[in-house]
Amino acid sequence: MYEQLVLLSGRANPPLAAEIARYLGVTLGAVELSNFPDGEISVRLNQNVRGCDVFLIQPTGPSVNDTLMELLILIDTCKRASAARITAVIPYFGYARQDRKDMGRVPITAKLVANLITKAGADRVLTMDLHAAQIQGFFDCPVDHLYAAPILDEYFRKLNLPQDKLVVVSPDEGSIKRSLQHVEHIGGQFAIVDKRRTSAVDCRQENLIGGPIAGKVAIIFDDMITTGGSMAGAVKVVTAHGASKVYVGATHPVFCGPATGRLREVPIEEIVVTNSLLIRPEQSLPNLKIVSVAPLLGEAIRRIHRNESVSYLFD
Amino acid sequence: MYEQLVLLSGRANPPLAAEIARYLGVTLGAVELSNFPDGEISVRLNQNVRGCDVFLIQPTGPSVNDTLMELLILIDTCKRASAARITAVIPYFGYARQDRKDMGRVPITAKLVANLITKAGADRVLTMDLHAAQIQGFFDCPVDHLYAAPILDEYFRKLNLPQDKLVVVSPDEGSIKRSLQHVEHIGGQFAIVDKRRTSAVDCRQENLIGGPIAGKVAIIFDDMITTGGSMAGAVKVVTAHGASKVYVGATHPVFCGPATGRLREVPIEEIVVTNSLLIRPEQSLPNLKIVSVAPLLGEAIRRIHRNESVSYLFD
Amino acid sequence: MYEQLVLLSGRANPPLAAEIARYLGVTLGAVELSNFPDGEISVRLNQNVRGCDVFLIQPTGPSVNDTLMELLILIDTCKRASAARITAVIPYFGYARQDRKDMGRVPITAKLVANLITKAGADRVLTMDLHAAQIQGFFDCPVDHLYAAPILDEYFRKLNLPQDKLVVVSPDEGSIKRSLQHVEHIGGQFAIVDKRRTSAVDCRQENLIGGPIAGKVAIIFDDMITTGGSMAGAVKVVTAHGASKVYVGATHPVFCGPATGRLREVPIEEIVVTNSLLIRPEQSLPNLKIVSVAPLLGEAIRRIHRNESVSYLFD
Amino acid sequence: MYEQLVLLSGRANPPLAAEIARYLGVTLGAVELSNFPDGEISVRLNQNVRGCDVFLIQPTGPSVNDTLMELLILIDTCKRASAARITAVIPYFGYARQDRKDMGRVPITAKLVANLITKAGADRVLTMDLHAAQIQGFFDCPVDHLYAAPILDEYFRKLNLPQDKLVVVSPDEGSIKRSLQHVEHIGGQFAIVDKRRTSAVDCRQENLIGGPIAGKVAIIFDDMITTGGSMAGAVKVVTAHGASKVYVGATHPVFCGPATGRLREVPIEEIVVTNSLLIRPEQSLPNLKIVSVAPLLGEAIRRIHRNESVSYLFD
Amino acid sequence: MYEQLVLLSGRANPPLAAEIARYLGVTLGAVELSNFPDGEISVRLNQNVRGCDVFLIQPTGPSVNDTLMELLILIDTCKRASAARITAVIPYFGYARQDRKDMGRVPITAKLVANLITKAGADRVLTMDLHAAQIQGFFDCPVDHLYAAPILDEYFRKLNLPQDKLVVVSPDEGSIKRSLQHVEHIGGQFAIVDKRRTSAVDCRQENLIGGPIAGKVAIIFDDMITTGGSMAGAVKVVTAHGASKVYVGATHPVFCGPATGRLREVPIEEIVVTNSLLIRPEQSLPNLKIVSVAPLLGEAIRRIHRNESVSYLFD
Amino acid sequence: MYEQLVLLSGRANPPLAAEIARYLGVTLGAVELSNFPDGEISVRLNQNVRGCDVFLIQPTGPSVNDTLMELLILIDTCKRASAARITAVIPYFGYARQDRKDMGRVPITAKLVANLITKAGADRVLTMDLHAAQIQGFFDCPVDHLYAAPILDEYFRKLNLPQDKLVVVSPDEGSIKRSLQHVEHIGGQFAIVDKRRTSAVDCRQENLIGGPIAGKVAIIFDDMITTGGSMAGAVKVVTAHGASKVYVGATHPVFCGPATGRLREVPIEEIVVTNSLLIRPEQSLPNLKIVSVAPLLGEAIRRIHRNESVSYLFD
Repeated sequence: MYEQLVLLSGRANPPLAAEIARYLGVTLGAVELSNFPDGEISVRLNQNVRGCDVFLIQPTGPSVNDTLMELLILIDTCKRASAARITAVIPYFGYARQDRKDMGRVPITAKLVANLITKAGADRVLTMDLHAAQIQGFFDCPVDHLYAAPILDEYFRKLNLPQDKLVVVSPDEGSIKRSLQHVEHIGGQFAIVDKRRTSAVDCRQENLIGGPIAGKVAIIFDDMITTGGSMAGAVKVVTAHGASKVYVGATHPVFCGPATGRLREVPIEEIVVTNSLLIRPEQSLPNLKIVSVAPLLGEAIRRIHRNESVSYLFD
Repeated sequence: MYEQLVLLSGRANPPLAAEIARYLGVTLGAVELSNFPDGEISVRLNQNVRGCDVFLIQPTGPSVNDTLMELLILIDTCKRASAARITAVIPYFGYARQDRKDMGRVPITAKLVANLITKAGADRVLTMDLHAAQIQGFFDCPVDHLYAAPILDEYFRKLNLPQDKLVVVSPDEGSIKRSLQHVEHIGGQFAIVDKRRTSAVDCRQENLIGGPIAGKVAIIFDDMITTGGSMAGAVKVVTAHGASKVYVGATHPVFCGPATGRLREVPIEEIVVTNSLLIRPEQSLPNLKIVSVAPLLGEAIRRIHRNESVSYLFD
Repeated sequence: MYEQLVLLSGRANPPLAAEIARYLGVTLGAVELSNFPDGEISVRLNQNVRGCDVFLIQPTGPSVNDTLMELLILIDTCKRASAARITAVIPYFGYARQDRKDMGRVPITAKLVANLITKAGADRVLTMDLHAAQIQGFFDCPVDHLYAAPILDEYFRKLNLPQDKLVVVSPDEGSIKRSLQHVEHIGGQFAIVDKRRTSAVDCRQENLIGGPIAGKVAIIFDDMITTGGSMAGAVKVVTAHGASKVYVGATHPVFCGPATGRLREVPIEEIVVTNSLLIRPEQSLPNLKIVSVAPLLGEAIRRIHRNESVSYLFD
Repeated sequence: MYEQLVLLSGRANPPLAAEIARYLGVTLGAVELSNFPDGEISVRLNQNVRGCDVFLIQPTGPSVNDTLMELLILIDTCKRASAARITAVIPYFGYARQDRKDMGRVPITAKLVANLITKAGADRVLTMDLHAAQIQGFFDCPVDHLYAAPILDEYFRKLNLPQDKLVVVSPDEGSIKRSLQHVEHIGGQFAIVDKRRTSAVDCRQENLIGGPIAGKVAIIFDDMITTGGSMAGAVKVVTAHGASKVYVGATHPVFCGPATGRLREVPIEEIVVTNSLLIRPEQSLPNLKIVSVAPLLGEAIRRIHRNESVSYLFD
Repeated sequence: MYEQLVLLSGRANPPLAAEIARYLGVTLGAVELSNFPDGEISVRLNQNVRGCDVFLIQPTGPSVNDTLMELLILIDTCKRASAARITAVIPYFGYARQDRKDMGRVPITAKLVANLITKAGADRVLTMDLHAAQIQGFFDCPVDHLYAAPILDEYFRKLNLPQDKLVVVSPDEGSIKRSLQHVEHIGGQFAIVDKRRTSAVDCRQENLIGGPIAGKVAIIFDDMITTGGSMAGAVKVVTAHGASKVYVGATHPVFCGPATGRLREVPIEEIVVTNSLLIRPEQSLPNLKIVSVAPLLGEAIRRIHRNESVSYLFD
Repeated sequence: MYEQLVLLSGRANPPLAAEIARYLGVTLGAVELSNFPDGEISVRLNQNVRGCDVFLIQPTGPSVNDTLMELLILIDTCKRASAARITAVIPYFGYARQDRKDMGRVPITAKLVANLITKAGADRVLTMDLHAAQIQGFFDCPVDHLYAAPILDEYFRKLNLPQDKLVVVSPDEGSIKRSLQHVEHIGGQFAIVDKRRTSAVDCRQENLIGGPIAGKVAIIFDDMITTGGSMAGAVKVVTAHGASKVYVGATHPVFCGPATGRLREVPIEEIVVTNSLLIRPEQSLPNLKIVSVAPLLGEAIRRIHRNESVSYLFD
């Protein structure tokens, strides 16, 4: 339908974009990105995109406001340069946790962000492991929503962990559904770390529902690791209940503030994440394993460009 | 801000509208609603609404397409009749479960419905116990989202059930968060009915996580009862695990198809629901208790009209 | 321009859709349509429509709210499944008679419906014999408006009615223009059934303007037959004025309520209608003749898809 | 609701605006309107309109493009000057006859105009005797649609024409409905001038349906007089059929091109029109009677401003 | 991308459109444009434009309201006739000087016009020498903004004026930037005509900043000549300062009111303008030289249609 | 019109907001602003704003993406909390210099930002000394555009500089118009720093047009100081031409990168700026004088709230 596929990268995760370009066998489009001395973002395309099918790769991870604004300005640039179609490829969708008013007088920033992306001129969105699937409905344009779980699952299957000793652990109530899907694909028992306030002293006692897991190999799955607090806490509970080994799997390595410190302090065999976000050297950990979502995103882009079905990528 | 509050009711739940009107001390607005012989809906306002602050009360329960279209036509009527502000009061929001694409090539009908309501001309929405709170973000206009839980909780507190024997049961994983909030307000232990497919014979074995509940008084909470299958199944599991008495609490009595039959066949002390939807005589059950949300909705309408805080109603 | 034509049918008139598919030599697209137990419509596409030129065939006849909502949900589904272009093919456009405010405080439901269709995501509309041609202007997108009159006229020409005895009758003032166009194509004299209130007793006396029609063969044309009251009344007037035979021609067989009963009671040679709407067995009549608009609609779809002129179909 | 009513006039019909102002007991707002040397319109408000309820009086009669653009620029000016509400008062709505596509590849200019008015920033519209009532539905904002018929009827009633000799004549098929409404209010018989092409020589023979009218006093009603051709032709037919006197009534005196010449040449007792459009001296005729719609428009403005019912003005 | 390029011309500058068509080697599209007797514009396309890439050529010069409305109606026509893409080609953009509120309570008519063009249905705009480049940002769709300066510069280079005697003169402060660009391309010294009020007698004394220019050959550049007052004044100042010869260059020959008279009265060797606007015979001057922008516009249209870069035309 | 004025401040310039609140005699509204550990902005209103007239004070200076996103999220919060009207008060409008495409394939970020602000839900904008006045037209909502020049002029008048020795200097061609307005208000001669490339060696020679300024007291005005390069260069030119003293006046102290260093190195008596942006301690300079725009903004807010004229503030 569109003559030419053009792949452009913002400055949020150039290595991922480069890897996707290699997968697709194309050269990354020529775009100059810089900041004026006062911090305003400067964008200039150095190639023609008229009538092209443009894919802009930009996870809106930290620093979220800069990466988001850069995405919006890139969209505006391509729109005014007469791109035929603009797909915002957002492997990590920032502000996704602010997806509803759970108390009065707060924003629904995820919806605001969806509106901004659409208003800037994006025709469609390609994203991955949204914090809540309902965010798809924040858009009126088509959203292709990919799942990294199969990639994580494949990694763990290759580890050949003893199937009879395996237990998948959800680090909280909100991740139960996601964790059960991992159980379907890699097997194992299932347990939930239960965070509940004790009435008397208002502190939080963390128990385990399900199990027992003594002597078991636990894999704790979450969609993202931000400060690492929730995950490190879950590791402690699982360890305290006698797990022999603990693995951690998560799609988005946000890794902010005390994250690496916290994860370093608890006994984890491997922390398996994707490259949806760029991991800076100071965020690295010896037991960190990074699996690439470039083939997944690249294949989705190829199929979207060719009008082929993307559905099989959803399973 | 607005001179006059006008309360109008569609044909979905006139008794609720009448009760809200009594709470507010106003007369229901004069509107003629009928169907032409070919089934098209006919609306005619018999009073002036220019510059008025109009609240249209219409839960979009069964038959959902008729109640929804009637709401949309009412909105169009009021807009063209120069209402100053139109609030769609939707105690039960139909199509709410179709809130995301969990597989390819399906609609997000809840978002479609939100768009239709806005496009028709509603300025704001007042609703209650949305199936997913993210649906608030499907709207760009203000949404006041009320919770019926305090009303249900108050009912159960007045029953003076033995606190040490009480156990709150979530009928599935999706209701855990809601059920835990009930625990916070009425106390008791907590358990989850766990539905998992057994690998071999593809049937569904229902276990209980948490407990034990033998000899306990169980209350199973859900946001709605539709065919009653999920709830009746949970009652069976709970009974099978030895609960001495089982109560059921739910906000929305959709009660369709086999619901009343199924609920009649399992041992339930009381089924406590709200009047968010009209219960037709043939849907009635001897152990059905209906608590009214008219004061909750009425108070919210009063405060919205007067620009007073509605937040306290959210707790 | 678009790679592939996809023809999808809602549940309003599957035989018409099948006939159009045969005309076009294509297979109807795979879509699952059903209702959840609570009546909510469920839609799932079973084929890829990315980049396709989708035509959704759904007359919005009775029950109008269900057929309309199904159309809107189908549009949403196709839009989110990345269809390149969506044409709503609406052979009968429900709510068309509510096209203006002829008194205060009523809706303009036909405009509301147009807005809903556009908001859901339709890119264009193909319709037939709108009750008022101005409804085209309720849309900002292109509307192709077909006329069934040539098909009806051709049917009557083939009857070889005696040209010198033919009289075309308009059943009321609103159909004069349409009836005169039939006169241009099939010849004959012209008369109007005039409905005017008598001042004294507020009853309605029906006269005939034009004529005489004694001993003539009358054909009464209207755009639709709903309850049959207007048409049966016209037949009576025409008969009372001495017509020897009466034929009836109408595009849309809405046939609701007492329609078949009324039409059965008056002497009509043949009632000629199109298949714009599905006629259920219980609506059938021995003298009912159905002419097909499938070739007309099919040819329009073919030309729209190929960017060929559709204008000649308008004559 | 709004602190202050502000009445502004474009340059299309200042005397009408002045008369409305007098009716309302207000001073016309201070606005400078002129043309730059190249013909571009210059607008400058000389008073504060912040938070005001502004009514812009501008019939979009000849020269239609200038009066329409002036209206749009006035709306933009008031919007940017922070008017609280802007009502476009358009006693004559230009381009109204281009309200549908009666053949392929033509515009629907009346809808375009409606969109332009809304896009410029008008919040509502007050208009009169639209050529087709469906144009109300071209707007999504409230439209108050007034009828001048009662004013014309009152004028004719005061003439005390002999009731038994009175015949109301519709000048063509399109005006039948309007003419019948006049019959309801002023009584008399009814007849239609029928324009039909004769098959042989392609010329137009004009007959009279209804009657007889020999010796009768005929009143021919239309919504507007443009070139006068249709009306003069109807007068000839009526005269040829022996009417003793002929009156003419029309709301909008567009009077363009040969209109006054044509009307001068046929025998008409009185030509009764409203001042919805400004009649320039060279358009005047000795038998022209002008009835004022200023009280009708003024009362509607007063009621709209005060949020009182306007419905009774519709009858 | 689009099958067929269709070039249509409004009535503002048919010779320019014809010349562009010759450049492109295409035939101008068949469109009937006329005025109804009351002045309303009538448009009818006489060819199929379904799926076509339509370019509408219409400078919105005097009479600006007529040319603008004609453009809008043409857009509406093409949109409803299912054109795939509509580019408004506006060599001269009327109302461009009303581009900001430099005092309170005035419109920003240039933005209003941009909104009208977009609302009517234009997908993109091709224009030339906008009075302020920021007007591009008044649109959200792509705008290709061409410069006629290279064409004017080339004309002057071919005159072989003595380079050492050349001085480029800006007629006021607002044209300094434009004039300096001409200096870059054709060389010469630079001077500014400075208009400043003298404090005492409130009259305007015009001085020259820069120079000296005695004995020099001056070229005064401006973007447009409207009444000629500013340009004639600048010629006088330059002559008074001893320039031996004066040339004038301007893109847009608006030439209204006293323009030709004023320009005739001052000593100018040649007045060089483009054919962005049609020059009527009575506007002609013996020393008027017209250079054609048809190749520039034609080449831009060709490249836009073929999705080739237009950027080089911007230099 | 609105019951209550609510003044809220983002984190960009709280002292300015506090000063405006004091001017208005109101308390700043209660809003919690913070960042989640991953940098996402968290907003929570701690007071009711239903039906209130909210003014959000947030200059979008460095770091521009954070301050802009915070503004957008604040707008979303207030909109969803049912504010009656939201005015974005943006004393410094970031990204304003990216207001047009001066070459191909660049964004018009200022328009993008305007769209984002509107889409988020702002009803109106109050801003000051926009880099280009045309940015007002980037909005369709009302924009009140204030000028700080009178405040700067008043400061300089109070210095009692010798009027006969005064010379106002424009630092480049783009500031000529602004500088001439200062001349009108504080008198003095006028000169322009002329930056032109020398052809041979591509370096930039800075001359002075106008003058002489030897022994004069120069005031150089610009709308903003960013890196200080342009201003420091102008000071050098002016000094080199013999000015005895140099003052600098600018509205917006962006002061980024090398700004303070550069300004420290050139001889300036006083650098006079406003507090439109917060000046951090490390940006301070001994000769920096800050004049407050809080009274100007406060008075504008008061008048906007009360629907009083703001025009006089524009002079």
